[in-house]
Amino acid sequence: MQLQTLPYLQSSHNSEIGEELYQLISKLYPICRSITGNGFRETLNIINQHIPLQIHEVPTGTQVFDWNIPKEWNIKDACIKNSQGERIVDFANSNLHAINYSIPVRKKVSLAELKEHLFTIPEYPDWIPYRTSYYQEMWGFCLSHNQYLELRDEEYEVYIDSSLEPGCLTYGEYFIQGKTADEVLISCHACHPSLCNDNLSGISIAVFLAEYLTCFQPHYSYRFIFIPGTIGSIAWLAINEENVSRIKHGLVLTCLGDSGSFTYKKSRRGNTEIDNVVTYVLSSSAEENKVIDFFPYGYDERQYCSPGFNLPVGCLMRSPHNSFPEYHTSADNLDFVQPQYLAESFFKCISIVNILENNRVYYNQNPKCEPQLGKRGLYEADIDSQDRKLNRMAILWILNLSDGNHTLLEITQKSGIVFDEIKQAADVLLKYNLLASSPKDGL
Amino acid sequence: MQLQTLPYLQSSHNSEIGEELYQLISKLYPICRSITGNGFRETLNIINQHIPLQIHEVPTGTQVFDWNIPKEWNIKDACIKNSQGERIVDFANSNLHAINYSIPVRKKVSLAELKEHLFTIPEYPDWIPYRTSYYQEMWGFCLSHNQYLELRDEEYEVYIDSSLEPGCLTYGEYFIQGKTADEVLISCHACHPSLCNDNLSGISIAVFLAEYLTCFQPHYSYRFIFIPGTIGSIAWLAINEENVSRIKHGLVLTCLGDSGSFTYKKSRRGNTEIDNVVTYVLSSSAEENKVIDFFPYGYDERQYCSPGFNLPVGCLMRSPHNSFPEYHTSADNLDFVQPQYLAESFFKCISIVNILENNRVYYNQNPKCEPQLGKRGLYEADIDSQDRKLNRMAILWILNLSDGNHTLLEITQKSGIVFDEIKQAADVLLKYNLLASSPKDGL
Amino acid sequence: MQLQTLPYLQSSHNSEIGEELYQLISKLYPICRSITGNGFRETLNIINQHIPLQIHEVPTGTQVFDWNIPKEWNIKDACIKNSQGERIVDFANSNLHAINYSIPVRKKVSLAELKEHLFTIPEYPDWIPYRTSYYQEMWGFCLSHNQYLELRDEEYEVYIDSSLEPGCLTYGEYFIQGKTADEVLISCHACHPSLCNDNLSGISIAVFLAEYLTCFQPHYSYRFIFIPGTIGSIAWLAINEENVSRIKHGLVLTCLGDSGSFTYKKSRRGNTEIDNVVTYVLSSSAEENKVIDFFPYGYDERQYCSPGFNLPVGCLMRSPHNSFPEYHTSADNLDFVQPQYLAESFFKCISIVNILENNRVYYNQNPKCEPQLGKRGLYEADIDSQDRKLNRMAILWILNLSDGNHTLLEITQKSGIVFDEIKQAADVLLKYNLLASSPKDGL
Repeated sequence: MQLQTLPYLQSSHNSEIGEELYQLISKLYPICRSITGNGFRETLNIINQHIPLQIHEVPTGTQVFDWNIPKEWNIKDACIKNSQGERIVDFANSNLHAINYSIPVRKKVSLAELKEHLFTIPEYPDWIPYRTSYYQEMWGFCLSHNQYLELRDEEYEVYIDSSLEPGCLTYGEYFIQGKTADEVLISCHACHPSLCNDNLSGISIAVFLAEYLTCFQPHYSYRFIFIPGTIGSIAWLAINEENVSRIKHGLVLTCLGDSGSFTYKKSRRGNTEIDNVVTYVLSSSAEENKVIDFFPYGYDERQYCSPGFNLPVGCLMRSPHNSFPEYHTSADNLDFVQPQYLAESFFKCISIVNILENNRVYYNQNPKCEPQLGKRGLYEADIDSQDRKLNRMAILWILNLSDGNHTLLEITQKSGIVFDEIKQAADVLLKYNLLASSPKDGL
Repeated sequence: MQLQTLPYLQSSHNSEIGEELYQLISKLYPICRSITGNGFRETLNIINQHIPLQIHEVPTGTQVFDWNIPKEWNIKDACIKNSQGERIVDFANSNLHAINYSIPVRKKVSLAELKEHLFTIPEYPDWIPYRTSYYQEMWGFCLSHNQYLELRDEEYEVYIDSSLEPGCLTYGEYFIQGKTADEVLISCHACHPSLCNDNLSGISIAVFLAEYLTCFQPHYSYRFIFIPGTIGSIAWLAINEENVSRIKHGLVLTCLGDSGSFTYKKSRRGNTEIDNVVTYVLSSSAEENKVIDFFPYGYDERQYCSPGFNLPVGCLMRSPHNSFPEYHTSADNLDFVQPQYLAESFFKCISIVNILENNRVYYNQNPKCEPQLGKRGLYEADIDSQDRKLNRMAILWILNLSDGNHTLLEITQKSGIVFDEIKQAADVLLKYNLLASSPKDGL
Repeated sequence: MQLQTLPYLQSSHNSEIGEELYQLISKLYPICRSITGNGFRETLNIINQHIPLQIHEVPTGTQVFDWNIPKEWNIKDACIKNSQGERIVDFANSNLHAINYSIPVRKKVSLAELKEHLFTIPEYPDWIPYRTSYYQEMWGFCLSHNQYLELRDEEYEVYIDSSLEPGCLTYGEYFIQGKTADEVLISCHACHPSLCNDNLSGISIAVFLAEYLTCFQPHYSYRFIFIPGTIGSIAWLAINEENVSRIKHGLVLTCLGDSGSFTYKKSRRGNTEIDNVVTYVLSSSAEENKVIDFFPYGYDERQYCSPGFNLPVGCLMRSPHNSFPEYHTSADNLDFVQPQYLAESFFKCISIVNILENNRVYYNQNPKCEPQLGKRGLYEADIDSQDRKLNRMAILWILNLSDGNHTLLEITQKSGIVFDEIKQAADVLLKYNLLASSPKDGL
């Protein structure tokens, strides 16, 4: 797999792919998603226009490890009317106004009673917070603190036209069969309503990454899952428990559209190949970046990295959850994410996949002393079949370290040569049978 | 075992316990101790007023590894008289005046001959040095250098009323039966005469620590030994060779009454639980402290950490041996140690014991994905049965790392949360059966 | 083996040995060596005047792993004549003028054609470069860039009286039988013509080191090989493949006569005993030094450290290859190397050998508790049979760490005591049977 030969990417400049990523986010933004319900299904339908998803419906009450699939939630409308009957807080303006998973309600309330059901952010008085109450039945509204302060002491009517009934939890899955059964898992939570960075950005990048990988038969099989956060990954792990050992590498993608620098949260194991690959990709760029150790809070890596699974799954972000004030507010909107940042994030994912795909362990077929490069025309700097100059030190490093104990990335890191030159040199050595996938003798 | 519920400590403020520690030192200070003899027995008798000691007598000549128990030494009087018959150097003023283990002598000597048997500290001309000659028979006196310089050229009478006869080496032992047979060894050398920091401070703290632990049935069994230095620990190890494998953790306590900052000398292994616990306790305080690697000099840790035993025994001190000028001189007196420093040292020991006692390895009983905390009322910050706010991150860290490979202290260190909150959260998880002492499944 | 008792060294002051090392270089300097041929044989003959070499001749065409022994090259004369018939470039002035392994040629050429066969160093216009063409048949001349610029457009005659015929590759070997069959390999490439630092310096130091070691029966057997670079070590490894497992430590010696500080390039394994020993020796001196990781370029360590052999062989240099402008030019001459630097390098090698020879693992024979040093007269600082003061801390460190897992060098490094005092203390403990080469009991 060579990045530059991909038809998909050949047709896309950096700005074009950025725009495409942004357009998908724009299309998904208005939908009121939750961990269950039609908003989630509608989201999967839009994704399905890009990649053919397998849709799974898990019935309410199904036990998934220590949890049970909750009732399905749907909502049509919600508002607070003042005594003049004006819809002063209106779900039609922002689906964040209704507490996600609010039970239905229609009644008249005093200001005092109303206030017990209102949530604001005093520090950012223009923003509407995003609140949920999945496992504790209640109703409530979120609104800007400024609006809250203007509420007069009168009678209000609260109206939430929602339903909380037995139904299903829905998730989507897209599988690309690679040359091997070893899998790379790409996981996105898709349960947040009108919030762009968290996590329409991750969804959009995953969709285009899936499209990109569909153009080849990659070495690994790739499994993309679009799931509700926490309960979704728990359900997915419970349903797929038998098969998780196939997952050799994984990434949770989220918060990839803002202007912050990249952050990679390592897997619980901390030293897996995906950890090394992402760390290398981030450190290969001049931009600032942070690689942080696993901690048991954040996104669905919490479940993948629970001790009974302990999968090699990390989490790629720009600004991490809770580190930016717009997090879980109405300010995480279509202004907060930008095409250029989405495009950068997408290409980081491509770079990661590119290294994962090519990061093999090879065996020097002449392990005793150096082979004679000169008689093969490899001693003096040569050019490969694509007219690129060969790096002779890359050849020597690969020959010296291809003892079955070093991946190409490890050779890259020991030698200080960039991965692409190492990969290119390895390809030439493979062509000349100086390198192979299994040992010959003497090793 | 909860620190705040201890009857002993409830009745003692910091200053009260400091005074009690100091009073015991004051009582022991006048006695002329040595590695054998009645001074050592008298010391054990005073300790026995606090904790019931088992007294052991090991006969002279008994072989203990490469050594033999020496003759027993006792002393009644010693002096140097000038030509006027005045006792110018008098054992009654300080038992440091007589070389410890001096053979008996009574004779007239010239100044020149006398000087061959005199020891002083020219750098600290007011202080009397502490000297011993256990294994080479000789007689001699220690005195201040100022007094030495005043000696006139006249005839002197030297008199040492000592005995060096077959007898016994004496040591005392106090054992607290815990819930398990695994032992914590607390070792103090008790062979020094009128020297406070080295090691009446260690003895006093050990005695009160033993009293404290007697109020409970601790998890570990605790063995306190009051022994002569070197030959005592060698004898104890020889006699108890079969049982030392029970010792899971150990501390030599010494030099704990001076104003210096804390120093912990690690066990020879360097990475044992006691090393981690003491390092954590010292680093948890804002005070300066030093944790140093094992070296084969110092106190009885030399024997516990000899290669044939290699026990997990470290040494807790304030100022280490040889690092303060008062060391092994008459200036290591009742002014040099102070109640406040003794109290601080005592509470450090309590903190160490508290963590040792609680530092278990647990197993998450729902290792696959996170358990649903909300349905148990643990998702939102809750309070425990003692009305303390629970730390939810502590709960998540414990669940994530309770895979049988991490002690609570290791979870403390990985999470950056203080041990007490980790312990408190673990107790709550144990109560809800989310944690247990053995694995359930999937781990 | 005690450094100070060596007859060879007793007769040599630092300046004397420096002069002797320099004289051997001076004698070897004029010879036109190559990877095969009579220049190499003449070089071995001169070495043979110091140490009796076993000369090996490997016939042209012999396969050695992936390589074949090339034709033998010999040269008698070479020159470029101008149109007046003057020898303007003359092999008699410098054997660097002819490309090493040039095929014979005699013809008239235009300036344009001539220039295709000329090599210079524009950055150092006075120096003649050193060029070879072992595996690609061609002819050519090296000259100073200044002379190149003065060449007028006239007809020239080029003349190289060389032969490239079936023959042999020659190398020399010197073996010292030690007390054990375990070997130390000292390897020098001896294929460079008139170049002093690279590598007459290494050859000369190896010769005198071999002479020195011949005065004793050392613990290890020592094998010195004088071989052509690359093809020589490949041939030697191919011929001796069955026996290389005897090589326990090895050094490539090169570039040891210039004024640069010492550089040690570690073996591929990076943590072998020779790596530790050389690192210790270099760091024991106040002079600056560099210890660098293995990389697959440089000298014959490339072959010894190829993955199929992975021998514990490092490379000792002052200025490393390619790091000094004189490298592979006529400026690497008899001015560039100096007796004082050669002497320093020689003594570094002696120090390395001294530690290798003495760096044993011993077993404390009284591993349980400390042995009683006093009854053996070892407690108070004592003197050994050579009247040197004993270091009591050295004794305690050796006893504590002689558990079969620590070499004397490791004890040196843990204790911070110098190796010589550790070695001296170990000798005393061996004498008293407190230490032995095998465990007694309890360990």
